[in-house]
Amino acid sequence: MAQEALDSSTYPMVGGDGPHSYARNSNYQKESLDSAKQMMNELIDQHLDPGNHLYSFNPGNNSFRVADFGCSVGPNTFRAVHNIIEAVENKYKSLPVETEMPEFHVFFNDHVNNDFNTLFRNLPATGRYFAAGVPGSFYGRLLPSSTLHFAHCSTALHWLSKIPVDVMDKNSPAWNKGRICYSGAAKEVKDAYSTQFGKDVDSFLRARAQELVPGGLMMLVADGLPDDVHMCESSIGENLNVLGSCFLDLAKMGMIAQEMVDSFNLPFYYPSPSELKTLIEVNGLFEVKKIEKLDSSSAKKGVQLDVDVCILHMRAVLGELVKKHFGEGVIDILFERHREKYIGNPVLSDERYIKDASYVVFLKRKIKVTS
Amino acid sequence: MAQEALDSSTYPMVGGDGPHSYARNSNYQKESLDSAKQMMNELIDQHLDPGNHLYSFNPGNNSFRVADFGCSVGPNTFRAVHNIIEAVENKYKSLPVETEMPEFHVFFNDHVNNDFNTLFRNLPATGRYFAAGVPGSFYGRLLPSSTLHFAHCSTALHWLSKIPVDVMDKNSPAWNKGRICYSGAAKEVKDAYSTQFGKDVDSFLRARAQELVPGGLMMLVADGLPDDVHMCESSIGENLNVLGSCFLDLAKMGMIAQEMVDSFNLPFYYPSPSELKTLIEVNGLFEVKKIEKLDSSSAKKGVQLDVDVCILHMRAVLGELVKKHFGEGVIDILFERHREKYIGNPVLSDERYIKDASYVVFLKRKIKVTS
Repeated sequence: MAQEALDSSTYPMVGGDGPHSYARNSNYQKESLDSAKQMMNELIDQHLDPGNHLYSFNPGNNSFRVADFGCSVGPNTFRAVHNIIEAVENKYKSLPVETEMPEFHVFFNDHVNNDFNTLFRNLPATGRYFAAGVPGSFYGRLLPSSTLHFAHCSTALHWLSKIPVDVMDKNSPAWNKGRICYSGAAKEVKDAYSTQFGKDVDSFLRARAQELVPGGLMMLVADGLPDDVHMCESSIGENLNVLGSCFLDLAKMGMIAQEMVDSFNLPFYYPSPSELKTLIEVNGLFEVKKIEKLDSSSAKKGVQLDVDVCILHMRAVLGELVKKHFGEGVIDILFERHREKYIGNPVLSDERYIKDASYVVFLKRKIKVTS
Repeated sequence: MAQEALDSSTYPMVGGDGPHSYARNSNYQKESLDSAKQMMNELIDQHLDPGNHLYSFNPGNNSFRVADFGCSVGPNTFRAVHNIIEAVENKYKSLPVETEMPEFHVFFNDHVNNDFNTLFRNLPATGRYFAAGVPGSFYGRLLPSSTLHFAHCSTALHWLSKIPVDVMDKNSPAWNKGRICYSGAAKEVKDAYSTQFGKDVDSFLRARAQELVPGGLMMLVADGLPDDVHMCESSIGENLNVLGSCFLDLAKMGMIAQEMVDSFNLPFYYPSPSELKTLIEVNGLFEVKKIEKLDSSSAKKGVQLDVDVCILHMRAVLGELVKKHFGEGVIDILFERHREKYIGNPVLSDERYIKDASYVVFLKRKIKVTS
C-alpha cells in the first residue's frame, strides 16, 4: 500500500504560501531560471521561425501558445513564462517585415493534486497573456495535437512517474533496504532508477511531440549530475544520505518502523547530460539544439550553502511525500534532526563536492518524423 | 468596505464536497441541464457547420474547442460538457462525407476564487477530452481571439458583476434599506439591478464574440422570470424575501447590526426572455437562433418543492457571500431560521406562484459584424 502510494503523481510540492510552502522555499529553482534567461533569449532568437507556415493560426486566431510543465504554484512559473514571452516578443519585433504581435495563451500544467487555487490566485495581473491550468501527469498527453508553439519544463523532469518496482521488491537484487534513494546504494538500485528515468523521458517526449506544432520549440531545465560523477559524490546525494540516516535514527528511537524506512524511496533521478542526450536521440522526435550546463549562483564554486535554506527547501519539496508515508507527526522532528546533522557538513562549504547541476536542453520538434 | 466586498467575483459557490457544498446541492441546475439536452442536440445538429472554413484548424490541429463559463466545481459542468461533445460527435457522424472526428479541448471557467482543486479532482477520467481550467470573471476576456467553437453558460448569467452602486447609496432613491434583493422593493431598486444586468450581458457578449470563431455557437441556460411577472410573485422572490426577513430577525435579536443588513444585497437579477432578447439584439454581435422556456421538472406545475432541498441549495449558493459579510457565526442559525419560516409557505405547494424559469438561449456569432 505504502509502496503504491509513492507514485509521485500524488505528491505535490507543499501548497499555500506558509513558512514551509514551496512558494516561499523555491529559490534554488528561481536561480536556475534566472541563469537560463539569457540563454533562452538567444536560443529563441535563433530557432523561432514565425514565418513558418506550420505555425499558422486559424483565421482570426493569432495566439502563440506556451505551456509550462510541472509548474507547481508559483512564483517561478510566472517568471519563466515572463521570460519566454519577452524573448518571443523580441523575436517578433526584430523581424524585417512587420508581423502582427500574437496574443499569448499560456497553459500551466502540474499534477491534479497540485494547489491550482494558489497558482491562480497568484497569477500576475499583467494582462500580457491568457492563462489556463492543465491538471495531469506530464508523462501523458495533456493537450490536443499541434496545440503548442513553445513548451517549457524546469527542474521537474527528475521526478519519476513512479518508484521503480524492483527497488521495493525484497527478492530483487535492486531492493533498496535502509536507503531512501540510490545515492550510495548498489549498482542494481541505480540501474533500476536509470531504467525508469529512461522510460519516463521517452513518454514525456512522445507526448510533447504530439502537442507541439511541427517545428515547435521546447526548453528543459533539467537537474542532473556531470558525466561520470556519482550521486554520492554530489551535494544533493550527501544531503539525501544524511536525511536517510535521520529516518534510520527515528526507527532506532522507535518512532517509525524499520520496514517503513525500507519501503520509502524518493522518486528522483539525476541524469548526466550524456545520458539525457542519448535518451532524446533514441526517442528521435526532437532535434537537440543545445545542451549546456547552467551557471547558477549556488552551483558556483566557492559559494557557501546556507543550512537553513537547504533544509527548508528540502522540506517544501519532500514534506508531502514524507507525511503520506510516515504520517504528519514525524515531519518537525525529522527536519530538525536533519538540520542538526547537516550543520557543519563539508558539502556546505567544500567546493570539491560536486554540487548538483542544472542543464539547459533546447529542442526543436522535428518537422518530419519517421517513427 | 462591506459594500465593496459584495463584488460577486469574490464569492464562489461553497467548495469541496461536504454536506453544504455546491457539489452536493446543485440538483436544480442539473435538472435544467437535463431538460436542455434534447434541445441542444437539435440546435447543434441544425446550426453546427463543420465544413465552414472559418472553423478550420492549424495544420495537424483538429481540436474542437468548448468552454463552460461559470462552471463551479462540478458535477453539472461535466454533464453539460458530456452533452455538448455527444451532440457535436453526432453531427460529425451524420455528415454525408466522412470527416475526421476532432479532438475536444474543454475550458472550464469560473472566478479565480472558485475551488478549481475540487473541480480538477472530480474530472471524469473518460479520456474523451483534454481539460483546462480558466480562472477569471466571464464579464471580461478569458481566451485569445477565435479560440472557441462552442461556448456554454448555464444558470450563471443572473450573477451580476457587482451590486449596483445606487442600491447601497443612502442618498439615492434606489437605496435598498432592509432588503437583500429587489424583490418587493421600490421600482428604482429594480431599475438599478436591471441596468447593471444590461451592462453585464453586453460585456459578456462582447468578450464571447471575440473568443468564438466567426459562426461559432453559444448556448446559455439563463435563469429568469416570464414576461410581466414580478420578482415578488415568484417562488425565488418569495424565498429571498423570507431569507431577508431572517436577517432582520437576527438584527432585532442583536446578533447582527441593522446597518449590516441594509448594506447587504444579493448580486442576482432574473430577466424576462423579452428583456434578454432585446439586450442581445442591441449588442448586435450574435444572431438569436432560439429563446425558449425550459420545461425542467421542478418548474413543472403541480410539483411540490422540498423545503430541505430548497434551503440546502440556497446555503450552497449564498453561504460564502453571507459568511464574508456577516461572519461565520451566523450561518447555521440563519439557515435554520430560514427553514423554520419557510416550512408551510404556499410557494412550496401552490402552483399559482410562478416559479422561476430557465430559458435556453441559442446564439450564433455573426460572421460579419458592423460595429
